[in-house]
Amino acid sequence: MRTLYHLWLSPFSRKVRIALKEKKLEFGMQVEQVWERRRAFLAMNPAGNVPVLVEEDGTALADSDAICEYLDEVYPDPSLIGAGPFPRAEVRRLAAWFDTKFYHEVTMNLEGEKVMKRFLGLGEPDSNAIRAGLANVHYHLDYIGYLTERRDWLGGEFFSLADIAAAAQLSTVDYLGDVPWKDHPAAKDWYARVKSRPSFRPLLADHIPGMPPPKAYADPDF
Amino acid sequence: MRTLYHLWLSPFSRKVRIALKEKKLEFGMQVEQVWERRRAFLAMNPAGNVPVLVEEDGTALADSDAICEYLDEVYPDPSLIGAGPFPRAEVRRLAAWFDTKFYHEVTMNLEGEKVMKRFLGLGEPDSNAIRAGLANVHYHLDYIGYLTERRDWLGGEFFSLADIAAAAQLSTVDYLGDVPWKDHPAAKDWYARVKSRPSFRPLLADHIPGMPPPKAYADPDF
Repeated sequence: MRTLYHLWLSPFSRKVRIALKEKKLEFGMQVEQVWERRRAFLAMNPAGNVPVLVEEDGTALADSDAICEYLDEVYPDPSLIGAGPFPRAEVRRLAAWFDTKFYHEVTMNLEGEKVMKRFLGLGEPDSNAIRAGLANVHYHLDYIGYLTERRDWLGGEFFSLADIAAAAQLSTVDYLGDVPWKDHPAAKDWYARVKSRPSFRPLLADHIPGMPPPKAYADPDF
Repeated sequence: MRTLYHLWLSPFSRKVRIALKEKKLEFGMQVEQVWERRRAFLAMNPAGNVPVLVEEDGTALADSDAICEYLDEVYPDPSLIGAGPFPRAEVRRLAAWFDTKFYHEVTMNLEGEKVMKRFLGLGEPDSNAIRAGLANVHYHLDYIGYLTERRDWLGGEFFSLADIAAAAQLSTVDYLGDVPWKDHPAAKDWYARVKSRPSFRPLLADHIPGMPPPKAYADPDF
């Protein structure tokens, strides 16, 4: 059986979980406590981070982008990147926006400070970083609203890797209760549509021991 | 004519410059002083960063990865990603390694502190960051050596986006004279082969006014 090595609040692991489900691929999940730097895991991915997808023949794939591109090439139906070079470039531009810009401006400042720092033994959360994350998220929610007023989904007229990358990041921050949905009705409407997808529902059932999500996290009427 | 909006020391701009040259595509270059946040530029790329490639029909493409994937789809010869899902995933894993891991662990700490901070008006370089960058680069050069002892090029048996992403980052740091080549002969041998490629030579002629590179930067016998 295909196995995904992951962490519950890793947005990049979440991205691959959603992509696998959109393609209706079966997989098992294995939590990898990356801070332990387990030798067998480093042999699969010298970068030492999650996600890592081990295919049925034992081949290990690392990096969420490489994994999603791989999945879209090998299991093309439904396509998560789309057809035609310009539309595909647009989906990839937006996926990169959330994977890098949102991740560094928001997720790292919130989940990184509040959760990962603890696990990695890097000390107390930095309140300036948290403040920056809470300020920056508004700008990204505005951008989601701007896009969805012009298109059905973020990257175009279909649910794509752009939506998946965005929802993966936002769901991590939403688990901490840090997304100000009420100030951003258009983004909220988009996220309600994401929440209702079968591919996304397993993420809404996530429940980390000792760190329960706020009630709104799984609620379709958040 | 195709136009690349870039900054001389942006590793991601360099990545696209090399890819365009490998594919023998003609293009003009336009320096974009991203810190000015020019309105017409933000309309092409709301993320506000370089590179942006404007194709001959006027379509603007942003994000170096989206651009390189686009180029490989539309101009497939020579392929920079390769053939077969697993080899392609390996090239993408390594390109992501240099685009994200090397960039944050090395380039940001060196070029980011010494050069970009000044242009962005963010204050004095942080000597702790510089020290971290100078320490981290060894680990990445070791990894390049490890890979090239097992393969002709970083991502496999052909010159790929993995080599391009790595050389783009390293050339930026090398412009500052901060790559300890003499401690890493295998990585140095790989970089000498990159330097000899016609696609890479234009980068070696870069000469930023007021900030000349060290002599070894362009020297084939560095």
